[in-house]
Amino acid sequence: MRERISALVRKHQDVICGACEKLDGERFKEDTWKRPEGGGGTSRILQDGRVFEKAGVNVSVVHGTLSREAAAAMGGGRDLGDQDLEFFAAGLSLVLHPRNPMAPTVHANYRYFERGPGEKDGSWWFGGGSDLTPAYLFEEDAVHFHSVLKAACDKHDPSFYPRFKKGCDAYFHLPHRGEARGLGGIFFDDLHEKQRDGLFAFVEDCLCAFPRSYLPILDRRTGMPFTEAQKRWQELRRGRYVEFNLLYDRGTLFGLNTGGRVESILMSLPLRARWEYDQIPQAGSEEAKLLEVLRNPRDWLHISS
Amino acid sequence: MRERISALVRKHQDVICGACEKLDGERFKEDTWKRPEGGGGTSRILQDGRVFEKAGVNVSVVHGTLSREAAAAMGGGRDLGDQDLEFFAAGLSLVLHPRNPMAPTVHANYRYFERGPGEKDGSWWFGGGSDLTPAYLFEEDAVHFHSVLKAACDKHDPSFYPRFKKGCDAYFHLPHRGEARGLGGIFFDDLHEKQRDGLFAFVEDCLCAFPRSYLPILDRRTGMPFTEAQKRWQELRRGRYVEFNLLYDRGTLFGLNTGGRVESILMSLPLRARWEYDQIPQAGSEEAKLLEVLRNPRDWLHISS
Repeated sequence: MRERISALVRKHQDVICGACEKLDGERFKEDTWKRPEGGGGTSRILQDGRVFEKAGVNVSVVHGTLSREAAAAMGGGRDLGDQDLEFFAAGLSLVLHPRNPMAPTVHANYRYFERGPGEKDGSWWFGGGSDLTPAYLFEEDAVHFHSVLKAACDKHDPSFYPRFKKGCDAYFHLPHRGEARGLGGIFFDDLHEKQRDGLFAFVEDCLCAFPRSYLPILDRRTGMPFTEAQKRWQELRRGRYVEFNLLYDRGTLFGLNTGGRVESILMSLPLRARWEYDQIPQAGSEEAKLLEVLRNPRDWLHISS
Repeated sequence: MRERISALVRKHQDVICGACEKLDGERFKEDTWKRPEGGGGTSRILQDGRVFEKAGVNVSVVHGTLSREAAAAMGGGRDLGDQDLEFFAAGLSLVLHPRNPMAPTVHANYRYFERGPGEKDGSWWFGGGSDLTPAYLFEEDAVHFHSVLKAACDKHDPSFYPRFKKGCDAYFHLPHRGEARGLGGIFFDDLHEKQRDGLFAFVEDCLCAFPRSYLPILDRRTGMPFTEAQKRWQELRRGRYVEFNLLYDRGTLFGLNTGGRVESILMSLPLRARWEYDQIPQAGSEEAKLLEVLRNPRDWLHISS
């Protein structure tokens, strides 16, 4: 499994970066790094491109020994307590911030984790998800994004999409703002309730679905005209993205606290962000329409779960 | 004491805002707010001014009942445990972000706290400090800022400046970057080792010293010429400011977690911030010179303490 998952995330890093480069015209810059305690990764970044303001696609395959605190803070392996602190983790993580404020930011992250030899039940698990964060609401984009994710989920278990959609709304939430980070998607952690091969196939299908969940949306938004005021609103929303990642995101905080590679972890932050005091959109505006949806997450596919 | 400290912070809010308006030409916008659980405050903000990109000066005078968790997380009152959860707090807090990248950001915060009737030893205390965060290093600015703070400290106790200077370097530190937030200043918390009147006089002197610690620096930097590249560097450094405030600042996290007024708490964030992947200044550049000092905080006044 260790080899299969490593090969899978590396392959999809190539596929996704290739598709982004084709759209943008610019090339990703690649940094390969080693982790002193074991393993390493490859970070690819495209900054100040034609389509992307900042796009980062990161793969890491690492191993080592967890501290007890780190083990206790993790999403999976809770029943193991202080046993099996040796770990293996492999994953792909990406954030794409387009330049055009009509085009949404997207995030995806799929990972596999093992503690000890990864044989006991609960000592291996998958985690991941993907979610969409626009500055302007296009309902058809939300419906398209969720439909593609639902199809990938339904192939494996009809309970997956409704559960993981709820998990996404619960996780990507800024309590101090009373807002969701974006329009949701799917989010799961500690997934080990089925055979490992079956869950590997599920994660593989999620990775395969990523380009068709997002690129058609980007394609139809990236050429739209926009004003300076709309660009400022995008920067304000990117301020919220920064707030979520630095205040609440478990992966970011876990990475920074355990001595992860700072530049790869903070690659998720936008090129530019903005904070204006008490900025409240005019009632009825496009900006207010987005806030309304962030405050009351919708069931985009009309599934009562 | 409750009335004296409330009057003191309100007076200095007027003094400081008046001095800033005189320099900028623009006026602060004022919001007065009430806290449902008791007390309230006045937030003053000047955004997109001639001199200031964003300046916030906030006063709050609040009271209520602490949760046990909040009491345990506080800087003072530790010996009280779960006793005396009723509290009173009054303070002034400001962050000034100038437009010109040659002019440093400054932060100051002075506060008084009581638990229960505030009579027992350790049930009242003062906290506060002030620190300077430039994008470009002018050593004379650091020396001036620290000298004025030292003079205010020395009037009350020769041990204050060396102790609180160290406290500031320890507190305003980004471990994941291995950098100080800025050039330091003073920082103290849980200060109750002397008579209350004497410490009130100390905090009053610190507030009086604020304009002369900072405004002469602002005055000589705000008209300096600068390039687009220098402005971008300022925005990158403001990204670090955001990282500190959202990842580590106890006041920010305490405020957001205890349902404080979000707009007043996040008033400290800059108007614009920027994150570029793996941005490393050229060796020998002005930008590298700043980083060198942030990585190795200096004893600006050559005091071996």
